[in-house]
Amino acid sequence: MRDRFLIVVAAGQGSRMKSAVPKQFLELGGKAVLRRTIERFIEASPGIKVITVLPEEHIGWWKEYCFTRDFLYPQTLVPGGMTRFHSVRNALARVPDGAVAAVHDGVRPLVSAGLITKMFSMMDGCRALIPVLPSTDTLAVLDRRTDSAGAVTLVPAPGEEADRTRIYAVQTPQMFYSEDLKAAYSRAFDTSFTDDASVARKNGIPLSYTEGEKLNIKLTAPEDLVLAEAILKL
Amino acid sequence: MRDRFLIVVAAGQGSRMKSAVPKQFLELGGKAVLRRTIERFIEASPGIKVITVLPEEHIGWWKEYCFTRDFLYPQTLVPGGMTRFHSVRNALARVPDGAVAAVHDGVRPLVSAGLITKMFSMMDGCRALIPVLPSTDTLAVLDRRTDSAGAVTLVPAPGEEADRTRIYAVQTPQMFYSEDLKAAYSRAFDTSFTDDASVARKNGIPLSYTEGEKLNIKLTAPEDLVLAEAILKL
Repeated sequence: MRDRFLIVVAAGQGSRMKSAVPKQFLELGGKAVLRRTIERFIEASPGIKVITVLPEEHIGWWKEYCFTRDFLYPQTLVPGGMTRFHSVRNALARVPDGAVAAVHDGVRPLVSAGLITKMFSMMDGCRALIPVLPSTDTLAVLDRRTDSAGAVTLVPAPGEEADRTRIYAVQTPQMFYSEDLKAAYSRAFDTSFTDDASVARKNGIPLSYTEGEKLNIKLTAPEDLVLAEAILKL
Repeated sequence: MRDRFLIVVAAGQGSRMKSAVPKQFLELGGKAVLRRTIERFIEASPGIKVITVLPEEHIGWWKEYCFTRDFLYPQTLVPGGMTRFHSVRNALARVPDGAVAAVHDGVRPLVSAGLITKMFSMMDGCRALIPVLPSTDTLAVLDRRTDSAGAVTLVPAPGEEADRTRIYAVQTPQMFYSEDLKAAYSRAFDTSFTDDASVARKNGIPLSYTEGEKLNIKLTAPEDLVLAEAILKL
């Protein structure tokens, strides 16, 4: 079996959270969000090797948190880069070829251990695995317009429709053979890279998909944290 | 001020819910989902006229529920049609011109009274108002492929990208001048009509947009009901 690595991307500054503390460090049910995220992977795959990508200025804080709060699972701490792409590339430098690398958002602490376990098993039969969810809402393609007074309005994009039966929300963890992902990340950065799947696809890696989880939400706004607290109590 | 009407669309059979009882009738925190939905509008706009569209075979059940559970707010009960389009058209036959019609999914009981109130106020200045949410997940355009063994897989649609900065999830309530919406619904049915906004737009009604709510989820799958219970306890 290939060794398993978790690259947990927690290098964001959390500007959308309207909080001085980046959202991956906020407390959720008595533990830091990032700790909960990592713990789900340890639960699903004991012994998994963890690489945590952090804002450089928060590495000391995180070490202190882990030490004082008794979260002593071994982690390799890596400083984040200019963008998510550069952060993942920094982490991949610490992953050997021949492993399975799971890349996961630090602010998705509610991923179930069941999904992680299932996906690692499926990686016996595919080279790249991406969890996706179909859309339940109608979707609209809208453009932002700024009027002469500076007010921003949304207007329907002429002639463009978004077919909700074909558009899926892409979640993490996304799993890859490490040598594939390292090769993909050796390419130059492209602004179309919004996640690892887009980087891998650009490099010709065949992608497989599996059903994600509605509750595997990404904590981006203050109300998400409230929702996550409620979900934890289920 | 224009009279306010609520058309609450609750004619679905709920096949995705894996339940004999359609999801709008399931209990959520001790009350039927549909009752909670209607109560949010009454709270936001006391005196609002309510038109409830139900599966024909459940009209008797709903009357009994309202009577035995003391939910005695006046409602006009209308049987649903073949599709959501036909259901809304049936309801519009009961709405006079010169009103504001709010069309809302019966299975969105968590819409806040605040959003409803805000939207009714905004209808003083626009002809049609649609709540939308930007995407926080990456989006992918995927096609379903069935292989020779009958297994379904998802594959990336060649050359098609979904730009998450321009694709919004469309929620309800959607608000319109009743005479506009009635005119739009007098058109022939079209399979591209997934919501009222798409019907209105096809008829040339200018649409305005406002920010929806993350917690205003549509209950479509069993885990949504669990999530809704958690949200109610917030």
